Amino acid sequence: MKSPAGGLHLWRNARLATMAENTAGLGIVEKGAIAARDGLIAYAGPEAEMPSSLAQGTESIDCEGRWITPGLIDCHTHLVYAGNRANEFEMRLAGATYEEVAKAGGGIVSSVKSLRAASEDELVAQTLPRLDALMAEGVTTVEVKSGYGLDLANETKSLRAARRLGNKRPVTVRTTCLAAHALPPEAQGDKDAFIDLVAQEILPAVAAEGLADAVDGFCEGIAFSPEQMARVFDAARALGLPVKLHADQLSNLHGAELAARYGALSADHLEYTDDAGAAAMAKAGTVATILPGAYYFIRETKKPPVGLFRQHGVKMAVATDCNPGTSPLTSLLLTMNMAATLFGLTVDECLAGVTREAARALGLLEKTGTLEAGKSADLAIWDIERPPELVYRMGFNPLHARIWRGQ
Amino acid sequence: MKSPAGGLHLWRNARLATMAENTAGLGIVEKGAIAARDGLIAYAGPEAEMPSSLAQGTESIDCEGRWITPGLIDCHTHLVYAGNRANEFEMRLAGATYEEVAKAGGGIVSSVKSLRAASEDELVAQTLPRLDALMAEGVTTVEVKSGYGLDLANETKSLRAARRLGNKRPVTVRTTCLAAHALPPEAQGDKDAFIDLVAQEILPAVAAEGLADAVDGFCEGIAFSPEQMARVFDAARALGLPVKLHADQLSNLHGAELAARYGALSADHLEYTDDAGAAAMAKAGTVATILPGAYYFIRETKKPPVGLFRQHGVKMAVATDCNPGTSPLTSLLLTMNMAATLFGLTVDECLAGVTREAARALGLLEKTGTLEAGKSADLAIWDIERPPELVYRMGFNPLHARIWRGQ
Ligand SMILES: [Zn+2]
Ligand SMILES: [Zn+2]
Repeated sequence: MKSPAGGLHLWRNARLATMAENTAGLGIVEKGAIAARDGLIAYAGPEAEMPSSLAQGTESIDCEGRWITPGLIDCHTHLVYAGNRANEFEMRLAGATYEEVAKAGGGIVSSVKSLRAASEDELVAQTLPRLDALMAEGVTTVEVKSGYGLDLANETKSLRAARRLGNKRPVTVRTTCLAAHALPPEAQGDKDAFIDLVAQEILPAVAAEGLADAVDGFCEGIAFSPEQMARVFDAARALGLPVKLHADQLSNLHGAELAARYGALSADHLEYTDDAGAAAMAKAGTVATILPGAYYFIRETKKPPVGLFRQHGVKMAVATDCNPGTSPLTSLLLTMNMAATLFGLTVDECLAGVTREAARALGLLEKTGTLEAGKSADLAIWDIERPPELVYRMGFNPLHARIWRGQ
Repeated sequence: MKSPAGGLHLWRNARLATMAENTAGLGIVEKGAIAARDGLIAYAGPEAEMPSSLAQGTESIDCEGRWITPGLIDCHTHLVYAGNRANEFEMRLAGATYEEVAKAGGGIVSSVKSLRAASEDELVAQTLPRLDALMAEGVTTVEVKSGYGLDLANETKSLRAARRLGNKRPVTVRTTCLAAHALPPEAQGDKDAFIDLVAQEILPAVAAEGLADAVDGFCEGIAFSPEQMARVFDAARALGLPVKLHADQLSNLHGAELAARYGALSADHLEYTDDAGAAAMAKAGTVATILPGAYYFIRETKKPPVGLFRQHGVKMAVATDCNPGTSPLTSLLLTMNMAATLFGLTVDECLAGVTREAARALGLLEKTGTLEAGKSADLAIWDIERPPELVYRMGFNPLHARIWRGQ
């Protein structure tokens, strides 16, 4: 797929699911073509209506009727981590209590310990196979959070490793500083002092180095209170960084409303969000990021209020939440199946959730997430007969080709 | 991996999970080696104790500490089918009732229609990508059922297509005649007449042509009664074919006891099996095949009685049940994760379930399923640190190499 004519590429004889905002369903174009120039989509629509200037002198690729969707976007991952927690998983299945797992060094503390012990190079090396697994299924944009460092040196190390992933592979990486993820052992239980450290030292340093595209936190009884998260968000706002929130996953602390109050890009998990939370998110334009992998893996039984989100018009994204403790999941296709099977999302909602709405949850909707002129030519080309197959199958990858920025 | 010395192959510097029957847990050998001669395992055990005659003149493969397990075995699939039922899946998510789906031509009838319309060549071509997906994760033996043909010509066509898969790919295929799967439209509701057709015409013809290694049936209110299944089993017995049964999936018709009474290799699904059923299976040596993919996909809430199986000493296999209607699943790794997460199987039970116990469920335990001298050299070599990772991860394939019959 080398460029013969000034960075111009053309895919023809394709069926498109453009996912464009103001079209019905998936924005389907049955006899479609896409032209890209200098990495951007120059045309996406019916082949018969494509300006002839775009076809001239261009080597075109015959898609033989295959489907093209926007490249997939995983908008919530903790991809950069060291080691894994398979042993904890084994202990739990063998009947160990959470206390016994914790005594054996398990839980998030074990991920913090492993990450702190790993060099930046080791982090990159350990993360690449996970990134490759996502990309093999058509992912062209991935968000990566820190949050296992929990001090200045290790949070910045994590974010630098995340940035380097984007240099190592043809994929867009968006980084999020999640220093307010958990309390590190050295904080000795003093959550307020740790929040001071995050707000006054870690975030300013991360911002100064340009290491994060957004700021996130974990608002939960076992993590930080809404008041503590508000201090983190105030600091982010002062630094000009957009915010997101792990909200209402295990209980309703009104995290959704907190996120909405700060105009968050997204609030994520949301199993315990109520009507007021959904209404606030709708009003603020905050995306609901649905994370079925964690729900499945920790055997949660309370589902996120998908009906309320629909009713209030809250946009829904769908993501892997890839992390070693509660969602060791590196397949966005399987994640869509889980969102449909476990939460009843429709096929259209699932596909929008890993394209257009995932782009919105990252503040990137003007640049990617749909097949529309002017956006990055990020495409996934599939060996399928109809788009529902992408959601219906489990453990099968029908990707034919992945195009990032026109290549 | 060409053979330098009389069909002799050697893998050294490996860690083995032999899965041998009378060893603790996974039968782990930390510094292990495997030698294969003429496709059979000549030695599997500590490298230091390997007879030196096996090492002489043999080009050995350094596994660099990787793990070797028996090649995986998927002992329950409906892999040969035509088309898919993604549209039904979409309709259900959009709120359609089963009746509406059926009116739109959905349900098993649609798979029967598609299969009858497909040629044997088309069936093989449509099935190969599914088989390739299984093999890519280390599967070396796969069982394939008929059951969408439901008349002589189409049942034999399905089984011939299944046999041809084994010629097209380096994998052992075991075929099962599941003519008693559902009532075809032309039977016009007369189940007894259809069972006569199965017992008196289809099975004898299938046996005469050597097309099936076993006979299966679906014992359920929506399919066939225990009495009808007994007539099928009597016919199988007269033809010298071992039997299996889809039993107690949606209700308790005492299918487990029926299977045990006929000395079935396995009874499969078993969500509604009771204590008496488990006791009968234990006594008969009938394997319980656990199929979490269907449980997950149809949103079943009743789990198979894993505790009773343990208590009575019933062996448990784990399989994909790959089929277009209720389990479009082509990952045995994901299936293990589901068995652990949804049913609480331990890591050891999951790994035994896709190796040793799956071999037992196919009557092949003397030939494959463990790393022991005399068995087929069917190996899966993994890029993992510890075996629990094979169960813990979701949507990640750490296979390094797959060896079938020594190659
Ligand atoms: Zn998360
Ligand atoms: Zn089945």
